[in-house]
Amino acid sequence: MATKAAPKEFDELVAKLKEVQALSGISGLLGWDEMVMMPPAAAASRGAQKAALAGVLHERTTDPEIGRLLEKLDGVAFEDPYRTAAVREAKHDYQKATRITSSLAKREAEHETEAYQAWIKAREAKSFEPFSRALGKWVRLRRERASLIDPGQNAYDVLLDEFQPGLTSARLDEIFGQVKAGLVPLLARVRAHGAAPDDAWLNGGPFDREAQAALCRQLSLDLGFDLDSGRLDVSVHPFTGGAHPTDVRMTTRFKDDQLLDGIAGTIHETGHALYEQGRNLDYDGLPVNEAAGMAVHESQSLLWERMVGQGRPFAQFLLPKLQEAFPQLDKTKTAEDLYSGKNVVLTKSLIRVEADELTYPLHIILRYELETALLRGDIEVVDLPALWNKKMEEYLGVEPKDDVEGILQDVHWSYGSFGYFPTYSLGAMMAAQIFQTAQQELPDLDASLAKGDFAPLKTWLNGKIHKIGRLHPTMDDLLVEVTGEPLNPQIFLDYLTKKYTELYQL
Amino acid sequence: MATKAAPKEFDELVAKLKEVQALSGISGLLGWDEMVMMPPAAAASRGAQKAALAGVLHERTTDPEIGRLLEKLDGVAFEDPYRTAAVREAKHDYQKATRITSSLAKREAEHETEAYQAWIKAREAKSFEPFSRALGKWVRLRRERASLIDPGQNAYDVLLDEFQPGLTSARLDEIFGQVKAGLVPLLARVRAHGAAPDDAWLNGGPFDREAQAALCRQLSLDLGFDLDSGRLDVSVHPFTGGAHPTDVRMTTRFKDDQLLDGIAGTIHETGHALYEQGRNLDYDGLPVNEAAGMAVHESQSLLWERMVGQGRPFAQFLLPKLQEAFPQLDKTKTAEDLYSGKNVVLTKSLIRVEADELTYPLHIILRYELETALLRGDIEVVDLPALWNKKMEEYLGVEPKDDVEGILQDVHWSYGSFGYFPTYSLGAMMAAQIFQTAQQELPDLDASLAKGDFAPLKTWLNGKIHKIGRLHPTMDDLLVEVTGEPLNPQIFLDYLTKKYTELYQL
Repeated sequence: MATKAAPKEFDELVAKLKEVQALSGISGLLGWDEMVMMPPAAAASRGAQKAALAGVLHERTTDPEIGRLLEKLDGVAFEDPYRTAAVREAKHDYQKATRITSSLAKREAEHETEAYQAWIKAREAKSFEPFSRALGKWVRLRRERASLIDPGQNAYDVLLDEFQPGLTSARLDEIFGQVKAGLVPLLARVRAHGAAPDDAWLNGGPFDREAQAALCRQLSLDLGFDLDSGRLDVSVHPFTGGAHPTDVRMTTRFKDDQLLDGIAGTIHETGHALYEQGRNLDYDGLPVNEAAGMAVHESQSLLWERMVGQGRPFAQFLLPKLQEAFPQLDKTKTAEDLYSGKNVVLTKSLIRVEADELTYPLHIILRYELETALLRGDIEVVDLPALWNKKMEEYLGVEPKDDVEGILQDVHWSYGSFGYFPTYSLGAMMAAQIFQTAQQELPDLDASLAKGDFAPLKTWLNGKIHKIGRLHPTMDDLLVEVTGEPLNPQIFLDYLTKKYTELYQL
Repeated sequence: MATKAAPKEFDELVAKLKEVQALSGISGLLGWDEMVMMPPAAAASRGAQKAALAGVLHERTTDPEIGRLLEKLDGVAFEDPYRTAAVREAKHDYQKATRITSSLAKREAEHETEAYQAWIKAREAKSFEPFSRALGKWVRLRRERASLIDPGQNAYDVLLDEFQPGLTSARLDEIFGQVKAGLVPLLARVRAHGAAPDDAWLNGGPFDREAQAALCRQLSLDLGFDLDSGRLDVSVHPFTGGAHPTDVRMTTRFKDDQLLDGIAGTIHETGHALYEQGRNLDYDGLPVNEAAGMAVHESQSLLWERMVGQGRPFAQFLLPKLQEAFPQLDKTKTAEDLYSGKNVVLTKSLIRVEADELTYPLHIILRYELETALLRGDIEVVDLPALWNKKMEEYLGVEPKDDVEGILQDVHWSYGSFGYFPTYSLGAMMAAQIFQTAQQELPDLDASLAKGDFAPLKTWLNGKIHKIGRLHPTMDDLLVEVTGEPLNPQIFLDYLTKKYTELYQL
């Protein structure tokens, strides 16, 4: 039955969820402040503040009154599909929150510090061994978490769902299998070819940091970042956070010797920030208004960073700005030189965070294969370093000289974040697929990007993705709505093959 | 009976109070962020966040479990006087928090916005009339608050206690009566004399704002502000806030045409900040570790601003720094010129926030006399503008040209903050008394101030005031410990008389 008027339980639920949103927003602000503003001696008091707020949030998200309201609302169909989705997503969140025991939450919180310290120690020792036990404990804790949330499902799938709702390892096997089969030979061809485009003129420097900051600030505003509803600051690790869609805080950083690093980071974070600022305030405070998962979020940052920022039209827009801001740059360089210089494939790609778009997915697939096998119990923690190095050789043709350059390079596993890595590459694939549709639906897109008019694309994304929130249960459902089909890795492969075949004249 | 080991209820109480402190710290951070960092469109979402946190804080501060623990601890004497005081102050806070009904809290919160808007409207109309009803409602609401907290006491005394524990109107009548009797004739002599010291060379400008900011930052650090445990930023209205003694956030501002304004503001806020950073972390999280009231807090800002910053030795320290930072300044000026230029008495002192140290207390006494009479019911709201203007003439010899320059000049009454104004002048009197003791106990004080060595004074204040927190029940108890006697306004009067008799050659 479809009801016109929402039952009063819906309004009561909304009030509860809005309080949770407000408190979560405060938590977001504390996180931003800690990274950007907080004086160093405040670390301990901030820890106490975060713990107190986490306690309140746990209390509020597991309030039995929410359970009672959800029961009353069970099966109620609303005319407004957002309301139906609001109840569905609220139930999803509530079940997850109430199923985690406080004993497990406490042990997880304690192990976070322990495991991070062990990871630091292992990096200092340049050996995986000191981290091994801590990682093994994470596997046990995360299996416990998964079995509490959904004992009937395989553990890794339950963990995946926390990062991207509805995503399964069966689906990932399918997607990543296809991508690996396409990428490994393409990369081999690029590596065999050898002659990379020239990007030396974009490196070296020193590039004045204030000039970089001013240029990047303007770029972010050009892309559509709204300073009325956000801030742009500098931090050691760039990120996008904040307290609310009207209070989005993004950060960036600059390197003296790599001109494009700060620019790419700024465009990437602006992509995240536009998603946050574009959320649907008509459903403010409801889970349906939130982002549709980490992979979808990453699709927005990577669409702007790669599909726009590393594309030909954008190079036309950017080149004169670079030349104006950095008079030392070679004046004879063309937009085509900038385009090719921005798209150099690393022939020795060892570190994920420094990888180009072609080698990046192979870094992710390697991690995915290891963490699923680990959670399933097919491999043991002690087997990881050797397996890591073997796969690096097989997929990327390189061998780490030690574990710091190998299995210890990422912090994620020290937080027990199994299921996080895949979202990076899924985001890249979605970005290619969504951008392809944008090009079809916005016929003058290239021309507008070349002249720095980003409003049509931003508006299109606002309507197609940002305002949609968690309306659709899964990422594939959203992609069907936006692009007409579920995630199709072939679009991503075709994009890379065409681009690099041309750039490297394969 | 004195117990060595604290009963387990004490530790349970401490855990509860620490949670309250952590959540209050978050509230402090939200306030700072709103004034200094928050983007404009976030106002509404920040309002929701503050309301959610206020709800949680109310719940936690009125937790019946705290009441139960306090009952168990009733009459327990600890060897450590700080523990005894911790229980006493926790009880004081708990009783106050539980006696306010949620109905009143809600009506007060609603009226805050209404009354502030009415005050804005009245200022626009340059007439008290549109603010009159809103102020009348504040009187009723505050009487209700006072009668809930302590029906046996007069309403104004209960309100005073919220700003400075233990302070009464009987004590204030005594203090302010003596000050008024001394100041009015002294001011008349100054006004009759006429020839004020020259301060024209310190005004006009324009004084480069970056140079002002750099100088003020260095001054704050010289005085002892610790950037490891705090931040210094710029905001429209200077204030000191933050989240914890290890996370003290002070702000300042600069005027193009008044060189001393930014400097005085910086020294003032540094005085507040040193109090906050100097709090006793051995009792972190307990009310006994908090500041001993608003008047005591103001004594610390004013001690640095006036007793140090407006003194002779400091002028010796400051002059070369000013001349270095602002090459336009007349090079023939001496430290004595700077000292006298900083101590000009306003012969037409209409606006409290612009008043000098001699006229300032008369502004406060005027407000105090009006608000006590109002709360007692001796006068009506409608009588206020005429009474204001009459007292301005009588005490300060000036007449406001309209209500904006008169009774509408301060925002405090629009918040219903009756009892707040007196703390400003009590702070000034305490500052004089405490500084007199410091001069006796630190014999080389003037010499060390003249060469910019502020550590002896800061360390002395840390030990005598900052670390003592709320150990003593009242401000007079604290002063007896520090200076050997309760607040003695004669010290303040003697200081002013001596200083201005000399400066004005009366």
